Parts: sequence; structure tokens; C-alpha cells
Amino acid sequence: MDKVIDFININRDRYLDELKAFLAIPSISALPQHAGDVKRCAEWCADEMRRIGLENVRLIATPGNPVVYGDWLHAAAGAPTILFYGHYDVQPVDPLDLWQSPPFEATIRDGEIYARGSADDKGQVFMHFKAIEAHLKQAGSLPVNIKIILEGEEEVGSANLDNFIRDHRGELGADVVVISDSPMFARGVPSICYGLRGLVYFQIDLRGSSTDLHSGSFGGAVSNPAFVLAQMLAQMKDRSGRIKIPGFYDDVVALQDEERKAWASLPFNEKKYKKDFGIPKVAGETGYTTLERTWARPTFEVNGLLSGFTGEGAKTVLPAVAMAKVSMRLVPNQSPDKIAGLFEAYVKDIAPGTVELKITRMHGGKPWMTAYDNPYVQAAGRAIEKGFGRKPVFTREGGSIPVVSTFQEELGLPSVLFGVGLPDENAHAPNEKLDLENFQGGIIASAILYEEIAAGVGARG
Amino acid sequence: MDKVIDFININRDRYLDELKAFLAIPSISALPQHAGDVKRCAEWCADEMRRIGLENVRLIATPGNPVVYGDWLHAAAGAPTILFYGHYDVQPVDPLDLWQSPPFEATIRDGEIYARGSADDKGQVFMHFKAIEAHLKQAGSLPVNIKIILEGEEEVGSANLDNFIRDHRGELGADVVVISDSPMFARGVPSICYGLRGLVYFQIDLRGSSTDLHSGSFGGAVSNPAFVLAQMLAQMKDRSGRIKIPGFYDDVVALQDEERKAWASLPFNEKKYKKDFGIPKVAGETGYTTLERTWARPTFEVNGLLSGFTGEGAKTVLPAVAMAKVSMRLVPNQSPDKIAGLFEAYVKDIAPGTVELKITRMHGGKPWMTAYDNPYVQAAGRAIEKGFGRKPVFTREGGSIPVVSTFQEELGLPSVLFGVGLPDENAHAPNEKLDLENFQGGIIASAILYEEIAAGVGARG
Repeated sequence: MDKVIDFININRDRYLDELKAFLAIPSISALPQHAGDVKRCAEWCADEMRRIGLENVRLIATPGNPVVYGDWLHAAAGAPTILFYGHYDVQPVDPLDLWQSPPFEATIRDGEIYARGSADDKGQVFMHFKAIEAHLKQAGSLPVNIKIILEGEEEVGSANLDNFIRDHRGELGADVVVISDSPMFARGVPSICYGLRGLVYFQIDLRGSSTDLHSGSFGGAVSNPAFVLAQMLAQMKDRSGRIKIPGFYDDVVALQDEERKAWASLPFNEKKYKKDFGIPKVAGETGYTTLERTWARPTFEVNGLLSGFTGEGAKTVLPAVAMAKVSMRLVPNQSPDKIAGLFEAYVKDIAPGTVELKITRMHGGKPWMTAYDNPYVQAAGRAIEKGFGRKPVFTREGGSIPVVSTFQEELGLPSVLFGVGLPDENAHAPNEKLDLENFQGGIIASAILYEEIAAGVGARG
Repeated sequence: MDKVIDFININRDRYLDELKAFLAIPSISALPQHAGDVKRCAEWCADEMRRIGLENVRLIATPGNPVVYGDWLHAAAGAPTILFYGHYDVQPVDPLDLWQSPPFEATIRDGEIYARGSADDKGQVFMHFKAIEAHLKQAGSLPVNIKIILEGEEEVGSANLDNFIRDHRGELGADVVVISDSPMFARGVPSICYGLRGLVYFQIDLRGSSTDLHSGSFGGAVSNPAFVLAQMLAQMKDRSGRIKIPGFYDDVVALQDEERKAWASLPFNEKKYKKDFGIPKVAGETGYTTLERTWARPTFEVNGLLSGFTGEGAKTVLPAVAMAKVSMRLVPNQSPDKIAGLFEAYVKDIAPGTVELKITRMHGGKPWMTAYDNPYVQAAGRAIEKGFGRKPVFTREGGSIPVVSTFQEELGLPSVLFGVGLPDENAHAPNEKLDLENFQGGIIASAILYEEIAAGVGARG
């Protein structure tokens, strides 16, 4: 293993040159004019995967962008198989004028590499490419079997990924999924994420009249859909921040004392949090801390509101329609389908007969949590400790990675979320960046992770 | 008087040709590219006023569009003076494709003249031109002194009108104001409006964070300004539709039994009202009818809402800001300034410390009501009865005409609202129209109105 780590340290400069080439491809999946770049990026990944010694490398067509596949399946008998998932597409770059250097000309400043995709997710995918390369070039083999799938539609909702996994169930058999597409808890605080929230998302449309009316001539005698919408939304939570949808909390797994204690000891600075995000005062469900509220408690959020006149000045309109986008983050063991049903029933129940109601379910994903003592999570913990010289903290994440549930359900696989980004990495914003120490440490930790997974499972067997 | 009415009946066809020329000028005050047309329209009015025999006709400059002034001050000693107010500017015509004939080529169909400005307000201004002309051409005199002011900014908020009236207080002395800029209660139901609601209008802006946040990573721990806005708006009215702002109803003049009885006998068809405007169910303050709710009770309305993501599809954003436009219609004797103060205090009181609040007062106007037995109102009633062959009904209006209060306060003058439009005249919509029977009846009624005002005041003196 020392030889492998030496190799990684010796090749540090080359890695940066190669990563820059990867980051130079503007593989923006949201913009049709970049369709050629997205394809080119998939081919770049395939070429790189062949270069580092993977086999059976190919682009697998989907109704959208192709999935890049490659594997290496020559590990010792009984060795486990890792299925690595990542994505090669990136977010759009608007507003371009806020970038300090061009988003597709990776630039190093103060020990960080700035480029679109540096953290999300090209840099972290590339980290595994280099860990695999180091093993295959130095040892001639990997301690585990590995299969890689790289998606090209993660930034636009992964519409074809679930079907892809279902359709290729036979080829994707493995023991554990590894995903590196998330930040660590804080700079210098490497972490393993063992839980994600799920999501259900809706649009609510109300209509009070066939056309906009004059608020003088009609005001007071006709239902105002914008006001009714406000009344309905206000009924979603009580004063303590608890969601009022009947049955909403029935399946929520309570926070364990052990978790609360562990999270309370994390280096979370509320003052800095408020300052960084311009928040006058944190707010949320009574009886929970900020980390508990975002990681372990479900939410109801208004994501958008639109009604009537919204321009400069005043217009005395009584709007015909009002619209809200709303979503709920879910925690284990809430089911998106069940919660969606409860939500729809409640909305219908509280909507007055003075408006026409339309509810549209947009999309969703299941919450996910794995056990602390899962051997793969433990293996990842040891790998991080060795790679970064510091024990990782165990965290959950407030966001959703729906594919994690798909791997669980379709393939029966646990996932290890092994991310080396930072919370201020600007993943979907201008000046996206990746810390180069974390990048280099991540390559080493990934190389060790394969060893630890092999050892951990060997120890079990 | 018969000679005057004969003259009006004989000249009917000529009136239409002249009115069409007036309506052909696209005097849209809201659109800078029509500034020349607005000026041309003012000049057309001045020329017409000279033609019909008015004196001292001139355009009086304001910081915006000019006011057209003209008078005739040779009535018998002791005769009262009418100050006539109207406007020569018109609304924009969008969406143009919904017009069945071009908005500035007046077209007669089924006894109605279709054109922008036909009802609001050129047609009704022109009605008075022709009534004055008939008197002066046939009798050589008018039974009253008359002063006319025509504004060119009514459709954009009359920003310069109050100052104009204040600055010309000396020249505008009169006994009564006549305004013809409103619809009658229903086709075949001529009406006199003796009350208007006032208005205060606000924008509320809330900010929960310096930028939009990810609803997964932050949801549950940070105040959602769109949700807080909904909570705050919902606290504006209780379940019975009563406004919860402390002190809001303190100065409201209660509906008189006499009024309630009179309104209950008006030919109001709620079924047709719901059908015409696509309203599932009328709604409002418990204990009041639809007419009472719109004419005599104050309101709180949401005129606009905007926050977060409002496009197609789903975006998991926790919005940084949320905005509402809100307004309150006021009834006698509510004061816009006092209500504005109560509203601002209440909003500040209910806003949580988790958001930054900004309240912007946009504009407003006082409510107005005149007495049933006001001699000028009675004179107008007799004029309408003679001109239309039917006793008028006495109504109030839910909308606001702020200048009516200005005339009261600055000049001490009562107003008579003497309108011959129809409720379905499409004043601010495509296919604006004026019924030609009402137009012709309105010219005769206007000619009689001058007589009746002279007689009514003579009877008093």
C-alpha cells in the first residue's frame, strides 16, 4: 500500500494537468447547445478509464445522455465488488460575470482549483480514477472488484437513471456503492454521511375567477386566491414549526440520543452560519438544534409564489389565480407516496369552496439512512482516518440523492457517501472550487478505501 | 328646453361622426410613444370646446400632460356654477388581438360604439360637450355657469391633478362638481353614485437570507420568507372575513337600514354575477350581501405575490426574499393615513425576528360619500328621470376616484357622479364600448341636469 501512496504523491502535478483537461469540457446538461460537449465529456471519461486500466469500457445509450461504464473484475476470490457512481455533467455557469476566472479554464488560487465541476462532481470522480490507476500501475491489481457508472444527467434530475439501473440489474451486481459527490462537514473535518432526506414536491394552483378583476369593484365580495393561498399555506405549520398535515410524523424515526450527542460536539458555529448566509435569526421546529433540523427532521417549504401584479408600482387587481410551489423534505422512514397522499388530502380538506384547486405532484425521492456499524461505513471511516490523518465525523445531509434509494431497492446495495468537497465549494454557483489538499488526500483515502473495504469484508467472512 | 332637446335629437348622426374623430386619437398616457397623440388629443378637446362656444379655452401645463380648461360664465345672476371634470387620456389596448375591431377606428355594432375611450372617458366627456353646445346654439345661453377641466393623466394615477387643483383654487371656484366617468347600475337602470371607497396600497418585502439557499441543506433551520409572508397575510383576516388590524373598524360608518333596504331591492342577480366572472362561490365578510360588501365595507386584498421559483417544473430553492402587494379599500370615515399607520404597526408587530421586513406605502385615496338629500344629487336624479324616462337608483361604488375627495377638501365642493356607461363596458379591457342609447340619453340628461341644478339651487335660495 505504501508503494501506491508513494505513486500518488509523486504524480501530484500530473493529476492537476489531467484534471484541468477534464474540467475544460463544458458538459452542461441543462443547455441544448452543449449537447456535443456532454457527449465529448462522456468520451473523455471512457478514454481516461481505458488509460488507467479499466476494462469493458463503453458508453451505454439512454433516452438522454449516455452512461459511461467500465470495470475491473480480477480481484482475489471472495473479494467484494464496489459499484462506483458519479456524474460527468455540470451545472450552468450563469451569472458568468461573477466568476473571477473563466469557468472552463481551471485556475489555481490559494490552494484551490476553481472551475465549474471541480467539486461537483468531476474533481471527485477523477480522484477515484487516480486511486484506481495507482493500484493498477503499482500493484498490477486492485484489492476489490470495481464497476463504474458515470451519469450525464445528474444536474437535470437523473430522469433516465432509475430505468438504467433497473435495465442493467444483472451487470451492476456488487456489494457496496461508493459515491463521492458531497462536501465534508467543514474544512479539516472529514466526514462520512450516513443519512439523506427525501423529497416530495408539488405545485398548488388556485383560481377565484375567470379573469383578473378590479379590486375596487369586486374586492370584498369575491374570494382572493392569493389570500386564500396564504391562508392555506399558513395552515401547514403551527407556531412551534410542527407540520400540521394529519399523520405526517407517523413514520418518522426519532433522533437517537447517541446521534444528538455526537452532533452537538461537531464544530458548528451558529454565529458564522448566520453571518455567512445573511440570516437574521435561525428558525425552525422547537426542541431541535440547527443540525438536527436540517439533517433529521422533515420540513415543509414554500419554494415559489406567484399571483397578480408583481411589477413596479401599484395595480389594483384582484388576481384570478395564485400559484405556489411547495415541497417537503422527508426523513426515514417516511414514504414519499404516503406523504404525498396525506398532503393532497389535507390541501383538499382546507381549500375553501370559493376557489378552484389544482394540485400537481412534481417529483420526489425517498429518504435514506444507513447504520453506523455497517462494515462498509466503518471501512470508509478507517480510510478517511488514514488518508486525512484525522478520524471522520459522522453526519447526515439535509438534501436528497434519490439514486441512493434506487441502489438500495433495485440492487439491494448499501451506499457509502465519501465526499471531500467543502461546504463553501459553490457547487451550483459562480466560482466553484475544490481544495487541492482535500483532492490529494481524497485520492489517497480512496486508494485506502478499496483496501479497507476488502479487509473489512474479509474480516467478516 | 324642448328646443334644446329637439336640437340634440336632430343632430344625433353628426355627434357620432364627431365622437369617432375624438376616439381616433390614441391618447394612451401610459406609453411614452403616444406622448404626441396625448398632446394632439388635448388640442382636439380645446378646439372642440371653442367650437361649441366655451370661452377662455386653453391648455394649462403641468409637470405631466396638460389640463384643458374652458368656461362659460354668463348665466343669470345667482345661477350656480358647475365644475365639470373628465379626462382625455385612455388605457393601453393590449392584448390587441382580442379586439374585434381596431381600438382607434370606432365601429358601431348592435347599437354600441366600440373603441378605446368610448366609455372611459371620451364618450362621456363628449356627451357634455354636446349638451353645452345644444344650449348655447339654441338658447344662446346656459342656465348655469360652467367650468371644464379635462385631465390627461387619469389612467396613470393623476399624479399632478391634486397640485393643479390646489394651484388653481381661485379659478376653479364653483358650487358643484359633475363627473361622468362611471357605469350605471345595469342596462336600463340609470343610477346616481353617492359613495366611493378609498384606498391604501402597500408593498411588503421580506428577506430571510442574503441569497437563495438550497432547500435540502438549509430547509427547516432557516426562516422561509415565502412561508412567513403567507403566515402574516393569513393574520390579516379572521374566518368571518373580518380584518384583524387593531382599530381598523373604529371610524367605519355603519350601513343605514334605509340603504340596506334600497340596495336589497336593486336588480342584482348573484347567479349571473358568478357566471359572468367565473366565480365558484361569492365570499366575504359574514353578515353582508355582495353589494354591501363591495360598496360599504372595507377590504383587505392581496394584489400580488412573488417569491422564489415560479417557472415550469420544480426547483428546490429556499427563497431569500418574498414580496406581496396588498391594499385596503376604505369606507367613510376611515382615513387613509390613519389606516396606513395601523397597518404598518400591525405588520411590524406580527413579523417574526427571523426575517427582515420592509413596508413601502404606494398610494391611496380617501373614501367619499354625499348625502341622499343633497340638492345637487336630487337635481341629478330629476335630470336622469327626464332624460332616460326612468327614476335613477342610488348606488355606491367599490372603486375609488380620489379627485372627488380633493374637490371636497381643496374647493369645498360636493360632487355628482353622473355616469352612463354599463357594467360590461370593458373600460380597461379589449372591446371597450358605449351604448348609443345611453350616449344619446346622456346628452339629453346632461342638458336637463344643468337646468335642474339651476332650478334646484334657485328653489333653495
